[in-house]
Amino acid sequence: MEEKISAETVHFGEHLTIDGYGGDLAKLGDKKNVFDVVNELPDLLKMKKLSTPAVFFAPENGEKDPGGWRGFVVVAESHIALHTFPARGFVSADIYTCRNGLQVDFVVDYFKEKFKLQDVEINLLRRGTKYPVKNIY
Amino acid sequence: MEEKISAETVHFGEHLTIDGYGGDLAKLGDKKNVFDVVNELPDLLKMKKLSTPAVFFAPENGEKDPGGWRGFVVVAESHIALHTFPARGFVSADIYTCRNGLQVDFVVDYFKEKFKLQDVEINLLRRGTKYPVKNIY
Repeated sequence: MEEKISAETVHFGEHLTIDGYGGDLAKLGDKKNVFDVVNELPDLLKMKKLSTPAVFFAPENGEKDPGGWRGFVVVAESHIALHTFPARGFVSADIYTCRNGLQVDFVVDYFKEKFKLQDVEINLLRRGTKYPVKNIY
Repeated sequence: MEEKISAETVHFGEHLTIDGYGGDLAKLGDKKNVFDVVNELPDLLKMKKLSTPAVFFAPENGEKDPGGWRGFVVVAESHIALHTFPARGFVSADIYTCRNGLQVDFVVDYFKEKFKLQDVEINLLRRGTKYPVKNIY
């Protein structure tokens, strides 16, 4: 089999996960507030939306999941997703971009403010560390 | 401000990221193949779909992004997303579930087979490590 692993590489993108605790019941349960995140955050981060921002209601699903809102938008640079669990004061969000230099503090503060979070836990992943600089095909 | 951080906690979920290299040009560029992933993987993992699986074409967007397909599905347990970049032989995927015990080897092998990947890079995150066991509101 022909070797198709590129010699010249760069990391593809940055993926920030934010898990927030102690959030405000009403703000986590407000469909419009969740929609606003997937609608306005791409603009604030100068990402280009490829899909209509979508928000779905997730009903209670077992003991662990009291239900909430799921928001999602596909951007040219990758995607933004969030899941709220109002009864637990919890939100779990992903901001994945293929442009480097993601404004981590700005995004974390944005989520803290949007849902009045008392505590957050973040991960910042470098995705695709062996991404080819040039087309291989 | 009242303290709304729960004392009794558990980790909320598991998030697997898969970045795959040296994939097959035709398979990465095949809309149906990308759709199949977001359509059938939830079933294979016994996840409950909350949205219609969606696939969008992303046109070329600068030097780094030769374009490709973006697939996404919201599941009760969270979401599955993937982004293919056929010209670079690259795919970047997220499988995020709030049920613990994700079958990592199964999912990685599934992506390897689906796109004929020559190399993969994975991260397995524990998300929401301070998730309240019970409703706080």
